[in-house]
Amino acid sequence: MSSTETEGRAQVVIVGGGFGGVRVARALARADVDVTLVDRTNHHLFQPLLYQVATGILSPGLIAPALRRVVKKQPNTRTLLADVHDIDPQGKIVRALGPNGQQLDLPYDYLVVAGGATHAYFGHDEWARFAPGMKSIEDARMLRSRILGAYELAELATDEEERDAHLTFVVVGAGPTGVEVTGQLAELAHHVLPDEYRSIDTRQAKIVLLDAAPSVLPSFAPKLQRYTQRRLEKMGVHVRLGTTATDMDTRSITVKGPKGVETITACTKIWAAGVQASPLAATLAKATGTATDRAGRIEVDPDCSLPGAEDVYAIGDMVTTVDRLPGVAQVAMQQGTYVGRLIAARVQGDHTTPAPFRYRDKGSMATIGARQAVADVWGVKITGWVGYLLWCYVHVMFLIGWGNRLGTLYNWVRSLRYARHRGHRLINMSAAKAVEEGRGAA
Amino acid sequence: MSSTETEGRAQVVIVGGGFGGVRVARALARADVDVTLVDRTNHHLFQPLLYQVATGILSPGLIAPALRRVVKKQPNTRTLLADVHDIDPQGKIVRALGPNGQQLDLPYDYLVVAGGATHAYFGHDEWARFAPGMKSIEDARMLRSRILGAYELAELATDEEERDAHLTFVVVGAGPTGVEVTGQLAELAHHVLPDEYRSIDTRQAKIVLLDAAPSVLPSFAPKLQRYTQRRLEKMGVHVRLGTTATDMDTRSITVKGPKGVETITACTKIWAAGVQASPLAATLAKATGTATDRAGRIEVDPDCSLPGAEDVYAIGDMVTTVDRLPGVAQVAMQQGTYVGRLIAARVQGDHTTPAPFRYRDKGSMATIGARQAVADVWGVKITGWVGYLLWCYVHVMFLIGWGNRLGTLYNWVRSLRYARHRGHRLINMSAAKAVEEGRGAA
Repeated sequence: MSSTETEGRAQVVIVGGGFGGVRVARALARADVDVTLVDRTNHHLFQPLLYQVATGILSPGLIAPALRRVVKKQPNTRTLLADVHDIDPQGKIVRALGPNGQQLDLPYDYLVVAGGATHAYFGHDEWARFAPGMKSIEDARMLRSRILGAYELAELATDEEERDAHLTFVVVGAGPTGVEVTGQLAELAHHVLPDEYRSIDTRQAKIVLLDAAPSVLPSFAPKLQRYTQRRLEKMGVHVRLGTTATDMDTRSITVKGPKGVETITACTKIWAAGVQASPLAATLAKATGTATDRAGRIEVDPDCSLPGAEDVYAIGDMVTTVDRLPGVAQVAMQQGTYVGRLIAARVQGDHTTPAPFRYRDKGSMATIGARQAVADVWGVKITGWVGYLLWCYVHVMFLIGWGNRLGTLYNWVRSLRYARHRGHRLINMSAAKAVEEGRGAA
Repeated sequence: MSSTETEGRAQVVIVGGGFGGVRVARALARADVDVTLVDRTNHHLFQPLLYQVATGILSPGLIAPALRRVVKKQPNTRTLLADVHDIDPQGKIVRALGPNGQQLDLPYDYLVVAGGATHAYFGHDEWARFAPGMKSIEDARMLRSRILGAYELAELATDEEERDAHLTFVVVGAGPTGVEVTGQLAELAHHVLPDEYRSIDTRQAKIVLLDAAPSVLPSFAPKLQRYTQRRLEKMGVHVRLGTTATDMDTRSITVKGPKGVETITACTKIWAAGVQASPLAATLAKATGTATDRAGRIEVDPDCSLPGAEDVYAIGDMVTTVDRLPGVAQVAMQQGTYVGRLIAARVQGDHTTPAPFRYRDKGSMATIGARQAVADVWGVKITGWVGYLLWCYVHVMFLIGWGNRLGTLYNWVRSLRYARHRGHRLINMSAAKAVEEGRGAA
């Protein structure tokens, strides 16, 4: 089908164009193979900055370049917009559906599945419409409608109770994503929006961050945890630790914590708690007889291959290894490069047992509102604006394309406190409402 | 309700935050009145650049700043997100619905209705889902999904007929919007996309522009019409004049022209033909006993007031005057400033008969693909790249906010032919398909 396809060349199929999948494709750029990159969206997504789309700082396009442009300069790679629904390891075929329901059978010699992860609501999938998370551009756009829409509804409210319900925001989960979106909620309330409203004082918004763990940023060093919590509290955020959500609906969330059970009246809830593997992990596990863990992640060998299937690899957030790596972009990217190189070697006739994949932890970081961040880099703990500059540098450099890097920097300058600008504030209240009422898809 | 509302101050209600409505508000910034600006979206929209959102050049946020930010520095102006559905000129009340169905009664002393226009399908409203137009951000996003999605579907197609159907684009209407979007369709096919596809040659896309008139850009000077048609044909566009659409469905459009009736197989159709006044014109006409014309526009007096209602004004695309002004942004903006000043004078006790509104035609212009434009400014006809630079300057300067101006310029530089970058290419095929099949709203 592909115009560059050559009889007899090894066929590599990559499922998923996220951090992992793109790195596999790049590592195969000069290999003597035909690569097919399949994704159900037309873009690569830089998920760590989705919260900035949800809070109006960045436009979606800056963190979501067209996937086929990302691999444009690799003539051996074609991109297909399709949804993979089945994998046949015996026949060595991936089955996918095109946008119009076209059946696509993609034969492979080597298969890499990099399907990522989605939200986990711990058995309460019905919460998804009340407390959306951030995994896709659609998610972020809908959250933007809810967050900015809440202020619109508060401005229209005629009684105080109603107004307070719209001005209360609850973030579930105090990992990096939860902390970062909470910081931006505080920025909006205190520094961006105040002068734009006439009937409400946006500074009276109540922002709650809760987590079951005894500290914020559970995976960070205690010093950084304490710093982050202090900063958030200084920004007026109510941090509730050792606290879990037990129930929620359109207008409220019930939480259980050290002080007992409490129902908070809050129209806007944001989910930043659990993740579970893409359904592709279960598809693959079933097809190959491989085990999955509690979060639905498939168990791979030290070389990221599947124990039950030859020449099938799985990487990123949908897999688990013996060393229990964290579900972060760095792991997926390093695994992607590793597997890409492994396949390139195999194709060249190298069938020795490869050295197992080793994760090089380059550190972790999170922003806390404007000009503040915590970073733990090679054991060095950094806080404040130095951490923020480091965070900016790392995140800009990992974006794909100089155009997007410059555009993102430009929007960050606009969003600094002196300018207080959130340039991308479009909302669609009726679409957000449809999702909340269970009538539409996110 | 408003914290700045003072007992006894005149209440001005402006319906619609487009080119007209925003100018009214600005002209009243220092007047001793309370202004309420009501819009059913949260943004002001720079419609002339919507086609650049539809073709991936600009992000929606750049041409759609939050309305309440636009009037942030006017303490006498509050912004409400609500949909006006009724006007009572006897009781002097505007009735609106908030996003959650809240009934809002807005009393006024002066009312300005600036509801704009929507698409007219000449009695074939069922065509709307096959051939979307460009009036809102949602429209432009959906068109972007259709245009870029067509190439995705062509890449997946297994037979030639299917492929050609996806690679044929028909634009109905050769006014400025139709010409501009056609030019960008040609740019995409010939200069932006070719290297990204492996199974198709995007340069083989067939782009058809049709109009019932005997020339493109009917309102422009003949010299500029001929120049534009020549340029478009040089870019490979099939220009069909004296031709109208007589029928269409998902996969085809039937046209009637000098050569008779023909059915063109084309999955993507774009409507840039007729407009009709916002339904608010009919609401207002019924409430005040005023006449409307064939396009649903309400007939206003020379001072933009309604003959049948005291202190009610209507401006922009939804009105018609004795001098039959064109439906362009310039008219709405000048009428807005005129009416705003008129109300300011009235409030200060000046009840003399005002000088009638006079439109100062500053000229008209349209781009034709990259680095080419035609402009007719104070009678001077300009073509080529000089016209293009002039077009860029005028359009950037009329955007609201320096941040958006710089951001737009930045994206234009990225989109120039040497860079060939369309930075905002997100698509949502399932949403576009739902609209096409009549299952969802645009």
